[in-house]
Amino acid sequence: MKYCSQCGSEVNLQVPEGDNRPRYVCNACGTIHYQNPKMVVGCIPEWEDRILLCRRAIEPRYGLWTVPAGFMEQGETSQQGAARETLEEANARVEVKALYGLFNLPHINQVYLLFRGRLLDLDFSPGPESLEVGLFEEAEIPWQQIAFPVIRETLGLYFRDRANGGFSLHSGDIVRSGSDMRRYEITIHG
Amino acid sequence: MKYCSQCGSEVNLQVPEGDNRPRYVCNACGTIHYQNPKMVVGCIPEWEDRILLCRRAIEPRYGLWTVPAGFMEQGETSQQGAARETLEEANARVEVKALYGLFNLPHINQVYLLFRGRLLDLDFSPGPESLEVGLFEEAEIPWQQIAFPVIRETLGLYFRDRANGGFSLHSGDIVRSGSDMRRYEITIHG
Repeated sequence: MKYCSQCGSEVNLQVPEGDNRPRYVCNACGTIHYQNPKMVVGCIPEWEDRILLCRRAIEPRYGLWTVPAGFMEQGETSQQGAARETLEEANARVEVKALYGLFNLPHINQVYLLFRGRLLDLDFSPGPESLEVGLFEEAEIPWQQIAFPVIRETLGLYFRDRANGGFSLHSGDIVRSGSDMRRYEITIHG
Repeated sequence: MKYCSQCGSEVNLQVPEGDNRPRYVCNACGTIHYQNPKMVVGCIPEWEDRILLCRRAIEPRYGLWTVPAGFMEQGETSQQGAARETLEEANARVEVKALYGLFNLPHINQVYLLFRGRLLDLDFSPGPESLEVGLFEEAEIPWQQIAFPVIRETLGLYFRDRANGGFSLHSGDIVRSGSDMRRYEITIHG
């Protein structure tokens, strides 16, 4: 950030009065430009013993598989966001159920809120951001081709919970480890 | 938003190519300025059968009571944010436990993530944003002086759960009802 989005003047990185960390401040009009983490909302759409995955038609991780998820938008609830992403990426309708995964990715200022979802019918197809959409039994999950560590981790917990007969909320942190873009430290809180 | 924070040119509200909703777009440098909901993170600090509340020294709702909570910051996890807010507002140290409340406030583009927390000692005092900090038994809670509907609702669920012998995650939507700033529609999902 270099310029004030309200008045167009240059901003300065400084600690505002009464605050304890640097913010982009416009000394012309007085606006403080706070920056905060974003939420990625999505769901694991379930149909009997299968779940729906999408193969990405966009970067990052073009060609790899994930559950429907994306940035939460203004004016919606997190559950509405999860349903919207499922509709956009898989042309699929879900009833969004309980929160299943709360994952912090502090190195990129994101929090994932992943719900379980009940697929309402089998009328699905790839949306513009997907190459393919399919239903997978556990044994068919393409574990080596899952797009994001947070999704691989969540699906691992999901199938373990399912084998144990019950689902409960899991929370964890997924932090990139050093400079290697492919290495992550994963901490599960519970 | 009127000006591009990257180059200082005027922005236009338009639907970018491949998108489906209006964004502030800079046609000079090409930056798309996405706006997304923010998270408010906090906790219910517990000490035996009492919980810690803070009386607000700032607007909005100056003089009313709430649990420690505030906007999540860049570079932290939601649990770290909840602990930081408790330290800042009550000079109190907590072990942040399970997520207890996930509440959407779509009319103001906020999501509350409220955890249960275990107070580590009784050495607490008002931080700069608090007039008073205190421990309350259920019968002592100032229900008519709770600062925010989301906190009143969460504490109501909390004491109901406690009476029933167990805590589980609750999720809901709290939406301002029409033009009356004091009326809200509250929907609890589960």
